[in-house]
Amino acid sequence: MNPLNQTAAEVLQRLCEQKPLILNLTNNVVQSITANMLLAVGGVPVMLTHSEEIRDLLHSCANGMLVNVGTLNEQQAATMKTAVQDAAKAGIPWVLDPVAVGLLKFRTQVCNELLNSPPAMIRGNASEIIALAGAQGALCRGVESSEDSAAALPAAKTLALKTGAAILVTGETDYITDGTHTITCTNGHEIMTRVTGVGCAMGGLCAACLTVANSALEAAVATAAILGLAGERAAAQHPHPGTFAAALLDELNALTPEKVESCSKLKIII
Amino acid sequence: MNPLNQTAAEVLQRLCEQKPLILNLTNNVVQSITANMLLAVGGVPVMLTHSEEIRDLLHSCANGMLVNVGTLNEQQAATMKTAVQDAAKAGIPWVLDPVAVGLLKFRTQVCNELLNSPPAMIRGNASEIIALAGAQGALCRGVESSEDSAAALPAAKTLALKTGAAILVTGETDYITDGTHTITCTNGHEIMTRVTGVGCAMGGLCAACLTVANSALEAAVATAAILGLAGERAAAQHPHPGTFAAALLDELNALTPEKVESCSKLKIII
Amino acid sequence: MNPLNQTAAEVLQRLCEQKPLILNLTNNVVQSITANMLLAVGGVPVMLTHSEEIRDLLHSCANGMLVNVGTLNEQQAATMKTAVQDAAKAGIPWVLDPVAVGLLKFRTQVCNELLNSPPAMIRGNASEIIALAGAQGALCRGVESSEDSAAALPAAKTLALKTGAAILVTGETDYITDGTHTITCTNGHEIMTRVTGVGCAMGGLCAACLTVANSALEAAVATAAILGLAGERAAAQHPHPGTFAAALLDELNALTPEKVESCSKLKIII
Repeated sequence: MNPLNQTAAEVLQRLCEQKPLILNLTNNVVQSITANMLLAVGGVPVMLTHSEEIRDLLHSCANGMLVNVGTLNEQQAATMKTAVQDAAKAGIPWVLDPVAVGLLKFRTQVCNELLNSPPAMIRGNASEIIALAGAQGALCRGVESSEDSAAALPAAKTLALKTGAAILVTGETDYITDGTHTITCTNGHEIMTRVTGVGCAMGGLCAACLTVANSALEAAVATAAILGLAGERAAAQHPHPGTFAAALLDELNALTPEKVESCSKLKIII
Repeated sequence: MNPLNQTAAEVLQRLCEQKPLILNLTNNVVQSITANMLLAVGGVPVMLTHSEEIRDLLHSCANGMLVNVGTLNEQQAATMKTAVQDAAKAGIPWVLDPVAVGLLKFRTQVCNELLNSPPAMIRGNASEIIALAGAQGALCRGVESSEDSAAALPAAKTLALKTGAAILVTGETDYITDGTHTITCTNGHEIMTRVTGVGCAMGGLCAACLTVANSALEAAVATAAILGLAGERAAAQHPHPGTFAAALLDELNALTPEKVESCSKLKIII
Repeated sequence: MNPLNQTAAEVLQRLCEQKPLILNLTNNVVQSITANMLLAVGGVPVMLTHSEEIRDLLHSCANGMLVNVGTLNEQQAATMKTAVQDAAKAGIPWVLDPVAVGLLKFRTQVCNELLNSPPAMIRGNASEIIALAGAQGALCRGVESSEDSAAALPAAKTLALKTGAAILVTGETDYITDGTHTITCTNGHEIMTRVTGVGCAMGGLCAACLTVANSALEAAVATAAILGLAGERAAAQHPHPGTFAAALLDELNALTPEKVESCSKLKIII
C-alpha cells in the first residue's frame, strides 16, 4: 500500500468531517467554480472584498485563505497585501496562485511583495513558478504555460527553500516539493485545462487541504490526487467541456477516501 | 385545496406572462446563477454598477430590484445607498439579502442604513435575520446559519413590524412573516445549500415575484414554494451538485402553475 | 456548394489550428461563459482589469480583444478607453459589444468615445445598433431588443460605413453587413436567449474569428453560423436552459468544419 495514497485519503476524510471555512480572494472569472469545488468536498467558501471584513473573518471563523491574482487591479492588490499580513497575525495559512506572473509586470511586483508574509503553499504552472522563483524561463502565453512542468522543478525547489512554502507545479505531471522531498502526481486529464477556472479553483482546494493536513507538502499531494482523480473519472464519461464541468463537481462530491487510496498515482522522486 | 398553493401558482403564472425586469445589485460570486434563475421563470435580469445608470433604469423599465451585500466594498455600498433611495422615488419595490450580517461589521452598518429606505422584503438565514433585527443570537459561520430557522421567528416578526417588510427566513423549513401572519414552507432539499448562489439567486426570484403578487407576503410564499419545488424535483434525479445545478434551472423552467398548486407544502402557523 | 458555408468552415478550422489568445474586457455576469466558449473552439481567453497589464498583453501575445460594456463603471470606462487606443497602436483588432446602448446614457457616451479608435466589428441587437448609429428607434428593454433585427439593417449599414467595422445584428435572423455586402444567418435557436451570457460570449467568439478570417465580414458570418449551429444542435436534445447551457459548450467543442460547411444557413441579400 502506497503511504502517500493513504495520506491523500485521510485528508479527504478530514475535509468532510471538519468542513473548513476558506476565504477566497480570487479573480472575477472563477468565483463560482471556486465556491462550488469547495462545497463539493465539504468546505465552506467565503468571498470578501473589503479589507476590514477580511480582517474580521480571519480573526473569527476563517480556517484558510486563497490569494489568486488573475484579474488584479490596484485596489485588489492593496487589499491582498493587507490580507496576507492579517492572515499571518491570525495564524491562518494561505495559498498563493501567481496567475500569469512573469508575463505581466504589475502582478509580478505584487506577488513578490506578497511573499513577505510567506504563504504555506504556492500553486502555479511551470512558467509561473519559474518566473516567481526569479529564474529565467520561457514566458507563458496568457494563462498557459510554455514549459513542461518538469522543467520547473529546479525553480520550484529554490522557491520552496526561499519561502518555506510547499510548491505545487501543475501540468500533465504535477510536481510537489518542499525543497527537500519531491512527489509527482499523474492523476488528471487534459480536458481539465479546457474548463475555465479548474486550475484556479484548485487553489481553493489547496487552502482547504492545508487546514486539515499534517504539512503543506501533504496538503499539496492530497489536492493533486483528489482533483486529478475526480477529473479522470468525469472525463471517462464526458469528453466535452460543458457536461464535463458539471460531472467534475459530481465526482468531487462522490469521491470517497477508499477511491483516493486505491486510485491515486503518487510517487516519491529523488 | 390549499389557498396558499393557489396563490403561489398564480404568481408563477403571472411571472411567465408579465416577464418583470429585475435589476440585481448582487455579489461577484452569484451574478450568473441569479440571471439564469430569473430567465428560467420568464424574468428579465439586468446587472448594473453605475449609479446614474441604475437611476435611469429605475425610472424607465425596471420592475423590481434586489440588493445583496455578499461581496460588499465601499463603492458598492455607496451605490446601493443611492439605489434604494432612487427605488423609493421611482416606486420600485426591492428585496434586501443581508448576507453574513451580524458576523461582519461593515456590512451590518450598511444594511442598517439601507433600511432607511425600507425594502418590501428581506430574505436571510436565521443568523442574518436575528442580527438584522438587533437581537442577540449565535453568529453565522461565514454564509451559513448557526441557528435553526424556527429560532429566528421572533426576530423576524420584530423586523417585519419595524420595517414593514415581509421576512423570508430560509432553512430546512422556511418561515415567512409580515409580523402578523406567519407561513411555513417545507419544500426544498438539502443539496440546494451545496450549490453556490442558490440562496442569493432566490433573492432575485423574490424581487420578480414581488412585482406580480398581491402582497410582499404572498411573493415570499410563492418564491419559497416555487424554488423549493424545483429543487426537490431536480434532487430526485441528481444527487450530486454539478448536474443538480443544471437540473435546477431546467426544473424551474419546466415548472407549471398546476405542479405548484398540487405540490407546494405551505402552511399557516399561529 | 455555398461559398459562405465554406468560408465559415475554414474559419473554424483555423481557430482550432491557431488557438488565438483573446483579451476580454467584459461584464461581471458573463466572464465564465465567455472564457468557456472560447476554450470550446480552441481559443485562449484572458481577462484583465489593470491598464498597464492590458497594454503589456496587447503588445506581447494577444491576438484579438473584446470590449463589452454590460456592467460599466467609471473605472472600467477609463480602462476601456485606454485599451482601445493601445489595441490600435499594437495592431490588435477588437470587437465592440454595446450592451443596452441607447437605454442608458453613461454607456452610450462611452461607446461613442470608444468608436474614435474604430473596432473591426460591432455586435449588438437591433435596438443597440440603431442607437449606436444615432438613428431614432425603439429603446431596448434592459438587454432585450424591442426591434426585429431586420429593422436595424439601414442603421447597421450606416454604422458600418461610418466606422469601417463589420456589423453583426443578432436576432431570430442575424444580419451581417460591411455597408456594401449584407448576409443573413438563420442558424440558432430561441433558447439561446434564455441562458445568460450567450450573446455576450458571442462577442468573444467574434474576436477569435477576426484573428483568423480574411475580413471582419467573414469573421462575423463565421461566428453567427458556428454559434448558431452549436445552439441548434444542443437545443435539439435539451429543451431547458440548465442542461442546454452545458450542451452548447459540448456542441461548440464537437463542431467540425464539415458540419459547418453542410449545415450553415447563410445567404447573401441585396
